[in-house]
Amino acid sequence: MNGAESLVKTMLASGVDTCFANPGTSEMHFVAALDSHPDMRCILCLFEGGTSGAADGYFRMAGKPAATMLHLAPGFGNAFSNLHNAQKAGSGVVNVMGEHATWHLKYNSPLRGDTEGISRAVSHWTRTSASAGDVARDGAAAIRAARSRGGQIATLILPADTAWGEGGAPETAATPPALHRPDTARLDAAAAALGRPGAAFLISGPALYGPGRVLATQIAQAAGCRLIAPLFAPRLERGAGSLPIEQLAYVIEVNQEMLAGLSHIICCGAEPPVNFFAYPGKTSTPEPPDCLVSELCDPDMDVLWCLEELADRLGARDADVTPVRPDLPQMPTGPLTAASAGAVIARLMPEETILVNESVTSGAPIYAATAGAAKHDWLPTMGGAIGQCLPAATGAAVACPDRKVLALSGDGSAMYTLQSLWTMAREDLDVTVVIFANRGYQILRAELANLGVEHVGRNASAMFDVDNPTLDWVALAKGHGVDGARATTPEAFAAALRDGLDRPGPYLIEVVLAG
Amino acid sequence: MNGAESLVKTMLASGVDTCFANPGTSEMHFVAALDSHPDMRCILCLFEGGTSGAADGYFRMAGKPAATMLHLAPGFGNAFSNLHNAQKAGSGVVNVMGEHATWHLKYNSPLRGDTEGISRAVSHWTRTSASAGDVARDGAAAIRAARSRGGQIATLILPADTAWGEGGAPETAATPPALHRPDTARLDAAAAALGRPGAAFLISGPALYGPGRVLATQIAQAAGCRLIAPLFAPRLERGAGSLPIEQLAYVIEVNQEMLAGLSHIICCGAEPPVNFFAYPGKTSTPEPPDCLVSELCDPDMDVLWCLEELADRLGARDADVTPVRPDLPQMPTGPLTAASAGAVIARLMPEETILVNESVTSGAPIYAATAGAAKHDWLPTMGGAIGQCLPAATGAAVACPDRKVLALSGDGSAMYTLQSLWTMAREDLDVTVVIFANRGYQILRAELANLGVEHVGRNASAMFDVDNPTLDWVALAKGHGVDGARATTPEAFAAALRDGLDRPGPYLIEVVLAG
Repeated sequence: MNGAESLVKTMLASGVDTCFANPGTSEMHFVAALDSHPDMRCILCLFEGGTSGAADGYFRMAGKPAATMLHLAPGFGNAFSNLHNAQKAGSGVVNVMGEHATWHLKYNSPLRGDTEGISRAVSHWTRTSASAGDVARDGAAAIRAARSRGGQIATLILPADTAWGEGGAPETAATPPALHRPDTARLDAAAAALGRPGAAFLISGPALYGPGRVLATQIAQAAGCRLIAPLFAPRLERGAGSLPIEQLAYVIEVNQEMLAGLSHIICCGAEPPVNFFAYPGKTSTPEPPDCLVSELCDPDMDVLWCLEELADRLGARDADVTPVRPDLPQMPTGPLTAASAGAVIARLMPEETILVNESVTSGAPIYAATAGAAKHDWLPTMGGAIGQCLPAATGAAVACPDRKVLALSGDGSAMYTLQSLWTMAREDLDVTVVIFANRGYQILRAELANLGVEHVGRNASAMFDVDNPTLDWVALAKGHGVDGARATTPEAFAAALRDGLDRPGPYLIEVVLAG
Repeated sequence: MNGAESLVKTMLASGVDTCFANPGTSEMHFVAALDSHPDMRCILCLFEGGTSGAADGYFRMAGKPAATMLHLAPGFGNAFSNLHNAQKAGSGVVNVMGEHATWHLKYNSPLRGDTEGISRAVSHWTRTSASAGDVARDGAAAIRAARSRGGQIATLILPADTAWGEGGAPETAATPPALHRPDTARLDAAAAALGRPGAAFLISGPALYGPGRVLATQIAQAAGCRLIAPLFAPRLERGAGSLPIEQLAYVIEVNQEMLAGLSHIICCGAEPPVNFFAYPGKTSTPEPPDCLVSELCDPDMDVLWCLEELADRLGARDADVTPVRPDLPQMPTGPLTAASAGAVIARLMPEETILVNESVTSGAPIYAATAGAAKHDWLPTMGGAIGQCLPAATGAAVACPDRKVLALSGDGSAMYTLQSLWTMAREDLDVTVVIFANRGYQILRAELANLGVEHVGRNASAMFDVDNPTLDWVALAKGHGVDGARATTPEAFAAALRDGLDRPGPYLIEVVLAG
């Protein structure tokens, strides 16, 4: 058994059975090993950004890491942006990056690059296998690292000779180390603080879905404090039947108003609130100046255990909670806007939809419209790096073949990784893609206005406007083997969305927003 | 004047007047500064890989660096692969990467990433401006670095507050340090070695076009030695009227045969020969075991000066040289193959075409067919990282608006950065794109066969075949605003190529290769 085979067997023995791949020559022995192990599901992405974004979406819904297969330093570079997003999501990913044979590295061959350097810029764990006999052990260590602290980016670099040389016996990844927990005194203090006036419980991670969400709601109810989710959370349960929660916004002033009057924010599974960007003359964080912020439990700690402990301290475990009631907007007429499109989505999306959102400037109205829609999971781009939506939707659909995935993306964002459309078609994934075509980077226009620049000249227009020519998303979808339709009215959008949701495979709808 | 304005003025004063851009919020002050300086040509790319690949193609034809504008760490990640290619080409590029305001960096905001770490993995020069007053000086230093050693990757990281704070006076980039030169004794030894039996002169960089090519040819002729170009050279003059030269190939055994009998290879502007990849049981370099390899002049040294010195030592300066004679293949009939497509290209491409090649497995037959075609420049992907062709063609067309650009790409390669089609349309660039659709990563099939694997199973097929669904390149082009046609016979390809070459703007032809 060669090193590559020992790695594939180690992965399968450890429960890593899905590989989003874009191999090159240096990974060819790994390809051969995968080929003799059909239990591993290999999914080809036509660009590496598709592999890493898919692994992010997969982890968030499957709760376990997938592997990616990446080609040397440039291939990892292509995956970097969505690894950044996965890192911010706390998603576990096992990257297998090829490398030249060890003795070939002293030469300046075309593809030689700084594989460890680029990996370290985004991975929590990086290791280059030293010999074929080490590959199984290193692979098991990579899987363990990807599962540690709730989910990490682990990158195993395989020089070609460690893949083709005689490997060791396959291993099974060891259980990851126990998650860190705050000590009793901090839990006591947090439970007390939540009960004082002006307190808010800021939660994320597993506190936002399933049993954790119930516990968090019971805690806030018992303590009488506000319950808030961050702007971005890896997986947020929403809609009718979910439990009510406030959520931070993108706009600093909105958040300042939301947090006004608070005297203490206790974070559990969430980072302390921070503005997306800094602006001249503005603070970096939105809470009132005299508001305390306590980090009870970081996102990589034992969030569920903390919730249980807090609930026990507050006697909250058996309290009844009141779910959100169904509240559908009217089917809209008039111009097709983000708000009217949101209303259509709210009315039509089925129970248990996985809504992968990167609709940027269209996001807030859609978020508002779907608050009382059928229960769904809302998955945003955690690291703010655009081009995550279509890949993440791909990964979520692989993880949950029985659920409908609705990918909502701005046109500028979707252009980054449109190759994922082909993977959706190849794998017949149940994804309806909605592209919000405002034909520009609208958020940048808003940001320039934030600086007080009123006149937008030739160079700024050239960098903001994605028109001249206009992108034709129906043609782009067709080019990738995906059917699609264009909508310019709410009625047409509703018809197209019904059509897309009725199909079991991928479908794309271009929503041309009224100017 | 703020820091961003001081940078734009410094760039313009230093002759950097072209910026391939994909900005984000952290670069907004730079956008505003560009907007008030219409002398800077800002070209929007809908993905950062388009910016860096365009800067590579631009440098190779314009002989001077362009700027790129990139968004934080993930945006730089998207540009990484084509920066790798540019680095291997010795192309000078000035990257301007945004960063959060200095005081915002202590927070774990969504887009915070390791900007310096990822830059250092591919850049020769990286600097983060410490204050707005430093930006002009740092910008001038970045431009000087990009021009040093023949061309380098220089990355200036601009925290947002250094862009919006009060800047210093604009500067003009200082002249780069003089290129290193070998000493007299090495030149004497090289001149003597070239005259001995079994010698070859391996040249690249400026030795492959213009006056350098003439000198190199005169040297080889006077010394009676062989003259060889590497497999990849940043810019290779070819066709009728160019000067004859041998060229190394991708296949190791072909190179071993080509170099058999040599006793000494003298490198000037070229790296010593090295195989693209290592294989079990094969050496890393193709020359005979007893062949000496001397590095007279590295690619980042003074190649033209060395050529002059050698020519003087060999009394070669005034020798007549015999250019390649026109030799066009017959207009082909029969199946549409890479060879017949190459014959069509050879017959139709106009004088001074810039041929940007990433046709991978289709490349060798096209190379052979065009040997006696109209004189042209041949620009390959220097770093072996696919997805460079369409961006580099974009940059070459910006650099040389009076020349026709012919971009030849495999379908798998072109999918990596297909967004460049839109930039070609937006800027009305004179590029004819030919996509060789073999509907798979054919080179990987060949590489798997190289390992002795004869049976290709489900997982390997899933990773090699780009079909099911078939990509529709005419639809993909249309989606980006580019007209196109599909050809399945040599006659149809000839008609489409005539049509494309006759137009002043972009056009795409999908060549469906006979199976």
